[in-house]
Amino acid sequence: MRPRELVPPRVIYLVSTNVNKYLEAREVVASFGLSLAFLKDDVPELQSEDVAEIAAEGARWAAEKWDLPVLVEDTGLFIEAIGGFPGPYASYVLKTIGLRGVLRLLEGVEERRAFFKTGLAFCDGKGSEPTVFTGEAHGVIAEAPRGSSGFGYDPIFVPEGGDGRTFAEMSRAEKNALSHRARAFRAFCKWFLTYRGLSGRC
Amino acid sequence: MRPRELVPPRVIYLVSTNVNKYLEAREVVASFGLSLAFLKDDVPELQSEDVAEIAAEGARWAAEKWDLPVLVEDTGLFIEAIGGFPGPYASYVLKTIGLRGVLRLLEGVEERRAFFKTGLAFCDGKGSEPTVFTGEAHGVIAEAPRGSSGFGYDPIFVPEGGDGRTFAEMSRAEKNALSHRARAFRAFCKWFLTYRGLSGRC
Repeated sequence: MRPRELVPPRVIYLVSTNVNKYLEAREVVASFGLSLAFLKDDVPELQSEDVAEIAAEGARWAAEKWDLPVLVEDTGLFIEAIGGFPGPYASYVLKTIGLRGVLRLLEGVEERRAFFKTGLAFCDGKGSEPTVFTGEAHGVIAEAPRGSSGFGYDPIFVPEGGDGRTFAEMSRAEKNALSHRARAFRAFCKWFLTYRGLSGRC
Repeated sequence: MRPRELVPPRVIYLVSTNVNKYLEAREVVASFGLSLAFLKDDVPELQSEDVAEIAAEGARWAAEKWDLPVLVEDTGLFIEAIGGFPGPYASYVLKTIGLRGVLRLLEGVEERRAFFKTGLAFCDGKGSEPTVFTGEAHGVIAEAPRGSSGFGYDPIFVPEGGDGRTFAEMSRAEKNALSHRARAFRAFCKWFLTYRGLSGRC
């Protein structure tokens, strides 16, 4: 085993078109003393029910294209009463039927459990195999949208472990304490700090 | 230009997990004197709003894997009043919220126009670039499911040019006279007969 070395920190690139995801992730990553940059690019996404697989394929693509240390994340929302809808197609569903449509599908439904799941994949440049992390946040779908911070489904998701507010009623730091995305990024950071120590590459 | 030659017909493979699609397509293809086989395989699908792009990438993948003349099709259902939902994610939506969920989103909605669009891509073995065909069927979403033939959204789709029956109330031949899928396959067959004449390869 190689001895640990002091190596200068390198920037890791979050490849995405969604700056909101970056703003959340940056805070988490910064708390580990790491530096995250936003590389705006439209990563092709696989149709799959597995967000980890979607992220892994995306990271492979982005590393091949950019030859940089890249992170690609994919998040789905799985509502139990409707078979896991909208799943990994959360953003298309939001764009078409919207929060209103999702709430309509749950009218009169008592059992409103749901969870977010983030798949986060890291590739250390061209030809590197992705390493994948996941994070989940369980909770319930609210009866009506509440709050205006965050993005996506935040106004209708009430996480477990909170005080009944939706993600959209929380500050970014409060959301990061409970969210699927922050959990995945924390798992990545812990791994990365070890990996960097061991490989001396990043 | 090469002279036309008499060449023995070769089998073309529809790569899919959905045998219903094959049963429809086989009839269309047979009417052109061509032979279609079913190659059951789960082709990875891109997340895209463009069924032609999804089919093209799929055909590229299948040709690389099987090194055979392959067809890959992808079909979406685009309902105008709800922004084109469920679009290319029609099968995931069917599996989760079902026809009942889709009808619920349209409760009280008068404007029920919708269309199916099929993208159909052909690759003539390893390394060949996909050639893509499309077919559309315009119509309206019924108030309630009717009929039991066909598959997918057939029970709630009433095509233009018909007599008010849904696709699921029609025989396969009747559906093929009006359907998006049959239109795409007819376009392919016309092209293929010319192409085969010109290239002498298939």
